[in-house]
Amino acid sequence: MSAAAATWIAADWGTTHLRVWAMSDSGTVLAAAGSADGMGTLTRDGFAPALDALTADWPAVPVIACGMVGSRQGWTEAPYSAVPCPALASNLTLAGTRCHIIPGLKQASPADVMRGEETQIAGFLSLNPRWDGVICLPGTHTKWVHVSADEVVSFQTVMTGDLFAAITGHTVLRHSCTDGWDDAGFLQGVDDAIARPEKLAARLFSLRAEGLLNDLPNATARARLSGLLVGAELAATKPYWLGQQIAVIGAGTLAGLYVTALGAQAAPATQVNADRATLAGLTAAYRSWKDQT
Amino acid sequence: MSAAAATWIAADWGTTHLRVWAMSDSGTVLAAAGSADGMGTLTRDGFAPALDALTADWPAVPVIACGMVGSRQGWTEAPYSAVPCPALASNLTLAGTRCHIIPGLKQASPADVMRGEETQIAGFLSLNPRWDGVICLPGTHTKWVHVSADEVVSFQTVMTGDLFAAITGHTVLRHSCTDGWDDAGFLQGVDDAIARPEKLAARLFSLRAEGLLNDLPNATARARLSGLLVGAELAATKPYWLGQQIAVIGAGTLAGLYVTALGAQAAPATQVNADRATLAGLTAAYRSWKDQT
Repeated sequence: MSAAAATWIAADWGTTHLRVWAMSDSGTVLAAAGSADGMGTLTRDGFAPALDALTADWPAVPVIACGMVGSRQGWTEAPYSAVPCPALASNLTLAGTRCHIIPGLKQASPADVMRGEETQIAGFLSLNPRWDGVICLPGTHTKWVHVSADEVVSFQTVMTGDLFAAITGHTVLRHSCTDGWDDAGFLQGVDDAIARPEKLAARLFSLRAEGLLNDLPNATARARLSGLLVGAELAATKPYWLGQQIAVIGAGTLAGLYVTALGAQAAPATQVNADRATLAGLTAAYRSWKDQT
Repeated sequence: MSAAAATWIAADWGTTHLRVWAMSDSGTVLAAAGSADGMGTLTRDGFAPALDALTADWPAVPVIACGMVGSRQGWTEAPYSAVPCPALASNLTLAGTRCHIIPGLKQASPADVMRGEETQIAGFLSLNPRWDGVICLPGTHTKWVHVSADEVVSFQTVMTGDLFAAITGHTVLRHSCTDGWDDAGFLQGVDDAIARPEKLAARLFSLRAEGLLNDLPNATARARLSGLLVGAELAATKPYWLGQQIAVIGAGTLAGLYVTALGAQAAPATQVNADRATLAGLTAAYRSWKDQT
């Protein structure tokens, strides 16, 4: 089948990107496209043209979208669903004439929000019915999500990726953590942070000092910094993952690091392909939407 | 007396600034000047002209300098003294024809370095002979320094100021921590971080989420972030300050925050004027240098 046979379009519309797939009714991908027209770069009246331009060669069918496109700064705000609730809300928000946006999730206390990850969670659960446990979605803002009885019970965001980028780009460690990687350094950082989380603040500048005094290689410093931050995250989220079944949904390298770090804490985790989860979630949302119309 | 009577010049030459004072032999300030010709903005052959330009109206007398001017990227490297040792080394490093640079301090394990603070420590000790305890020097890279029997025994750098700037400038919290201040928010952050330091990583994104969901004011989020980072620093440096006599050397607002945060932990600290400590340290170095020549 070609894209001409598409009956709907799946869209993952985040802050920095727009990705679309021409889909058959049964959930088969017929074609795919992407652009840098993320929510962060568009004004309110730029969303419809961006979507139309990227899908110009495809039928003008309904679009099911997830991500920051539904935020207050996005195309049209899709109000959050409050946990505990199913990952996938039954009410989508219409933006423009044909784009149906999946709402994000919010938690009252501790205050927390997500947009986009709820669709990956729904996709994972549609592929793994009756799965209970904790889902970790690594990224700029990593999410830890407790799932039980087909509902999101609670979740916790840790901005580890955001911190790593800010520290390596905009502090004195930019001189010490330029590039490269060292698996042993990563694991040492994880261990140090988990063993003595209260020491974290004192360990960062040491990476710089060890470079000056002991010629610590940049690759080791960079990997150890990443390990310290991931270890601090694991220390903070221990009530989530300890003794639980764990799935890590994410793209290759980063998700692999979380699986490695958890494994070192005797917490085995299963890695799940992020794109597959996203598409399964959008497909589940499409089916639910179609059943209602 | 006017600057024409100066017998030496005191210089505090950091990464972002150059400050100079025309001094009498007895340590009286006759004139002062400053520029943005910090080490970070100068190439190696730019130091002498920058100094000469700023002191052109003063006699061409010897200069005693402290700070990053003596780093590897500075004018001439003044090799570190290794602790335990007196704050003020007896060997200054000559740069150009008349600038004598005070060496910084290094510590082998845990690896750490300082440049400039050793002069403030020496100044404080010259004003407070036989003082034992812990000196905190807040800044971009805050130093915690254990002093006993007129020597620096050990020290610990925590890059709290650097982290605060990177987080408020270059992560998602830049939307939530733009400006303003709230003393209660600061103290809450300190308490939260000290009570449960392992939770730090999970608490940062909450500042954003509370803004989105509960209209947390920017001023409160910003102060609470500062409190969380200072609290994490106090948790990491507890072996330094617990049960010790504490002096905080620094400029008004920031040093005051540390005194407040320590006070909330039942650790009373004395605030010391930073400029006074710097000038006293440079004066002590001048006297020692003059005695040798």
